[in-house]
Amino acid sequence: MRTVDWDSTRQEVQLIDQRLLPGRLEIATFRDVAVLAQAIRDMVVRGAPAIGVTAAYGMAMAACRSSASTIKDLHDDLNGAAETLRASRPTAVNLAWATDHMLEMVRMPYSSVDEMRMRLIEEAMRMADEDVAVNKRMACFGADLIENGDTIIHHCNTGALATVDWGTALGCIRMAHEQGKKVHVLVDETRPRLQGARLTAWELSQYGISYEIISDNAAGYFLHSGQAQKVMFGSDRVAANGDVANKIGTYMLALVAHANDVPVYAVMPTSTIDLSIPDGSQIPIEERDPDEVLNIQINGEKVVPSGAKARNPAFDITPHALVTALVTEKGVVYPPFLSRLSKMVGDGSTR
Amino acid sequence: MRTVDWDSTRQEVQLIDQRLLPGRLEIATFRDVAVLAQAIRDMVVRGAPAIGVTAAYGMAMAACRSSASTIKDLHDDLNGAAETLRASRPTAVNLAWATDHMLEMVRMPYSSVDEMRMRLIEEAMRMADEDVAVNKRMACFGADLIENGDTIIHHCNTGALATVDWGTALGCIRMAHEQGKKVHVLVDETRPRLQGARLTAWELSQYGISYEIISDNAAGYFLHSGQAQKVMFGSDRVAANGDVANKIGTYMLALVAHANDVPVYAVMPTSTIDLSIPDGSQIPIEERDPDEVLNIQINGEKVVPSGAKARNPAFDITPHALVTALVTEKGVVYPPFLSRLSKMVGDGSTR
Repeated sequence: MRTVDWDSTRQEVQLIDQRLLPGRLEIATFRDVAVLAQAIRDMVVRGAPAIGVTAAYGMAMAACRSSASTIKDLHDDLNGAAETLRASRPTAVNLAWATDHMLEMVRMPYSSVDEMRMRLIEEAMRMADEDVAVNKRMACFGADLIENGDTIIHHCNTGALATVDWGTALGCIRMAHEQGKKVHVLVDETRPRLQGARLTAWELSQYGISYEIISDNAAGYFLHSGQAQKVMFGSDRVAANGDVANKIGTYMLALVAHANDVPVYAVMPTSTIDLSIPDGSQIPIEERDPDEVLNIQINGEKVVPSGAKARNPAFDITPHALVTALVTEKGVVYPPFLSRLSKMVGDGSTR
Repeated sequence: MRTVDWDSTRQEVQLIDQRLLPGRLEIATFRDVAVLAQAIRDMVVRGAPAIGVTAAYGMAMAACRSSASTIKDLHDDLNGAAETLRASRPTAVNLAWATDHMLEMVRMPYSSVDEMRMRLIEEAMRMADEDVAVNKRMACFGADLIENGDTIIHHCNTGALATVDWGTALGCIRMAHEQGKKVHVLVDETRPRLQGARLTAWELSQYGISYEIISDNAAGYFLHSGQAQKVMFGSDRVAANGDVANKIGTYMLALVAHANDVPVYAVMPTSTIDLSIPDGSQIPIEERDPDEVLNIQINGEKVVPSGAKARNPAFDITPHALVTALVTEKGVVYPPFLSRLSKMVGDGSTR
């Protein structure tokens, strides 16, 4: 089962509703771009690669469901769909990348609206398959960095659920496990949405990989006391200089790993690398509903006092100096990132 | 109303049950040392100064309620009570310090068991009053470090609830507010027990101080983007070299503040400074029930998958190099801490 899929018969986008996991595994279906964009905003689906492919399928769905009878009208509908999808979440570049890529497909010459529809569906399906293939390639590179017996601190969810299938950082850990290496994962619970405690713990239990959940703020204790040998996470956007935008808390984790000489690996497809952004300060940071912080409960009771306010930035920037290496499907990139990323990605083959 | 108090008539220790706040304000009463020790373990009362005075009252209560008719028998009962209380929580030195101090009182010459009982009650009450006075003195020193317009990131709860009254780090912020300085507090929610979201937010709302709750892992975002000018927290034990044991997460917070040139102030009475411990590596770190991490709920539903495991260290060590200054009732101590703490505390006047 894929995190994101396309039902050709019903012309629907299908998403595993990640808000219900691990309690229930349910598939949500979508026939409307605005509703799909809201689902991305509400985090029915999350994870940079997964929302990228969701947007690609969203474009294909918009093409299928458009009543346009001319190529010009279909162009207009798809430009509108792209705008709606892009506006759903600002930080992950994959969303913009996927909609831009689909718009490029839209602009190619077609003999009929039906041919265009068909090509957009094929392209979205190709992108989904490509995501899985890319993940497995980067997992092989990442697994080589993991040693037998390693304990790895992992932030957020970067597994099959964050992608179409297999995963990025968690995919590397899974590959190392499948290669027979003994690994143990300290799972950052990842406040406020708890993607670690909720999704990563669930995936690891499915794969039979040993893990323990920790409060995000406990990583320093384990790193300082020598109880973890690696730190791994994904990314929502990498700037040209190697600065990494990722789930809130990544920066503090990378900083404390760096301070304790523990290697920090950020794992992402090259489609996440945005050479148009010189450094992390230029990456927009989404600030989400304060209720995500405030709605925490223990023993069925709300914790915060009435009238409490909160701030809820959803991402932060990890300066490239804290990152040991970036793991991509094209190989492991070590500093200096600026020249090496430019050489790897700048040829236009992937962007 | 005090966090910890003594009912002379009923010979009971009274504690605000902090597990029920901010929903309900209830007083729990104790007549038995073993039950009181369990309440400390269960965090009915928490905060290093508060549990210190609770232990002192526990010793006084044990003396009152002992059936001993000779000074020798009362000695034996109180040695047992001290052992029970000390075993409740290992990290905060104030607990050991208070029981040791009460045992010193026990060993003084008395003409009768009733005289000894009376003196122990008087001494515990004196220690409670002294805690409040000490807090107000350190609050004046700490408030001087806060500038008008400062946003301060604060970890855990160090307010009136963590002490007999007034508080340590939060007491400094409260004093600055009462002096007319405009302050805003970013309240680390402080997973897993959420003392920040639960208790600090509640106290700040009572005092009319502006605040917002943040996930602990978001502090880096606010510090890196220049949205906070100070970091303040308390301590459960300070080693001779200035290493600070405090609530889990303090180390990562201090590290990220230090990396962004934001001053880090640890606030504690000199009774928290333990010159017998050369550095932080010698401080015992309590590891608590994993359920404290696992029992988190959103919308009334448990988050973690069934069978999930967790690690739950309750404290960590902040290396002294990350601490800008220690704020005590005797003044603000800057590095080098080793010589200055030794000079300030080593004269035996407070330990």
